[in-house]
Amino acid sequence: MIDVAIIGAGPAGLSAAINVAARNKRAVVFGRGPETSWIYKAESVNNHLGQPGMTGADMIRSYYEHARGLSIEMKEGRVLQALSMGDYFSLNFENEFYEAKALVFTTGMPRSAALPGEKEYLGRGVSYCATCDGMLYRGKDVAVVAETAEGEEDAEFLSEICNNVYYLPTYPYVSGLPEKVQVITGKAVKVDGGEMVTGITTDADELSCQGVFFIKEAIPPESLIANLEMENKAIKVNRYMETNIPGVFAAGDCTGGPFQVSKAIGEGLVAGQQAVKYIR
Amino acid sequence: MIDVAIIGAGPAGLSAAINVAARNKRAVVFGRGPETSWIYKAESVNNHLGQPGMTGADMIRSYYEHARGLSIEMKEGRVLQALSMGDYFSLNFENEFYEAKALVFTTGMPRSAALPGEKEYLGRGVSYCATCDGMLYRGKDVAVVAETAEGEEDAEFLSEICNNVYYLPTYPYVSGLPEKVQVITGKAVKVDGGEMVTGITTDADELSCQGVFFIKEAIPPESLIANLEMENKAIKVNRYMETNIPGVFAAGDCTGGPFQVSKAIGEGLVAGQQAVKYIR
Repeated sequence: MIDVAIIGAGPAGLSAAINVAARNKRAVVFGRGPETSWIYKAESVNNHLGQPGMTGADMIRSYYEHARGLSIEMKEGRVLQALSMGDYFSLNFENEFYEAKALVFTTGMPRSAALPGEKEYLGRGVSYCATCDGMLYRGKDVAVVAETAEGEEDAEFLSEICNNVYYLPTYPYVSGLPEKVQVITGKAVKVDGGEMVTGITTDADELSCQGVFFIKEAIPPESLIANLEMENKAIKVNRYMETNIPGVFAAGDCTGGPFQVSKAIGEGLVAGQQAVKYIR
Repeated sequence: MIDVAIIGAGPAGLSAAINVAARNKRAVVFGRGPETSWIYKAESVNNHLGQPGMTGADMIRSYYEHARGLSIEMKEGRVLQALSMGDYFSLNFENEFYEAKALVFTTGMPRSAALPGEKEYLGRGVSYCATCDGMLYRGKDVAVVAETAEGEEDAEFLSEICNNVYYLPTYPYVSGLPEKVQVITGKAVKVDGGEMVTGITTDADELSCQGVFFIKEAIPPESLIANLEMENKAIKVNRYMETNIPGVFAAGDCTGGPFQVSKAIGEGLVAGQQAVKYIR
């Protein structure tokens, strides 16, 4: 059992992790690689006290070194879903399952705006996780709107159980999908439906389907765990970095602006320490 | 006119200052010297992300260098009082007066507990500022409870206008006060009074007086400015580091724990940026 599972490996997540480790508890950081952090590409950061003019890449490197120096476990990939099990949490991490006593969300800024209909139909035809929800669409028609090549695996899986599978990549798609998957070149514009999803509209066409899967670089946190309270597109937290769900904390850009390293590191510390306090 | 006056020169204050400067506004930091920061004496700080094992002295030095590199004005000494003038603030800094559009309190942890009666009689015989309030006690008896040698100047000034002046140093007092000032060796235990202050009790004696001046290393923030809302001995702030007084922000240890550098720097950034937003 993990003491504190941290979802997101940017400055906030790593700050939370080192502060959990400093209290002699087991932290595991789940996240994409260092180079996916927004700050990574910054040429020079001048407003993080004590380190003027550092490059974003050097900052991120020093954060990883600090965490590695404390032997913090890091798992590279995406958390697909988190479930509250009463007094602990279950995490689906790329279809491996982990249990943790407390969670810290440090998922960063939402990377893409939701399409009209996306939020409204979540759970009524819209899903962010083919592995979790694919079986609900057995024998039906589905669309996959994919930000990254990871969507190709999802489309392949869906093609084995669904009827028509439409693939709408928003990244430069190369090829390699099974023939059964129909690659759509139009840009997805909105999700259509009545009670449930009935299709997806592109700038060129209307496709009829019962399921729409959005495969994103980062799954929106409110879709990762049920009933997480949001405010202005950010996770709502108080000064202790507590969310509305007991045992779930959040820190950094996912809690709203300013989107700055100093804030992320400071909030990460508070969230990590509070998570340790919670499990005690 | 100063854009943002920052009261306190620790990590939170300097982080606020560099972030005000980064937005091209004039910040002035008022505070005691670098070596008075709590963190200064830390042998090794291991939970500030990216800089494991740094000494507190090296951290503070790097913070001052960062601020000096941005040509931020720093004034060493104590702010004795802040007054809201409607759309700006007036500061009494060691009896020089400054005007600022916004304030950020980064005064650190309260250093000494209040004596019984101290808070209750504030403004009814108790004062933290001999220069501000001394004249109210012309011809009367006063006591000066001093944490630092700065109290000696206050006692000397009071001896010129008051009747009896009792001096109760809590630091190793050397000598040098005018003969009229009576140095009391007993330890102050409580402030006595009815409607107003009537005296001070020490562990050896009871002294009759109408005024009691507490000269502290740091003046409690709620005594620096009228009507500042506190909560659990800390300045009450929201997630934007706003206090209950428009234009007054706070960050770092004075807003409550955890008393850690990462939190101070993160909150300092938010307070600095929000103060700039306020004056715009």
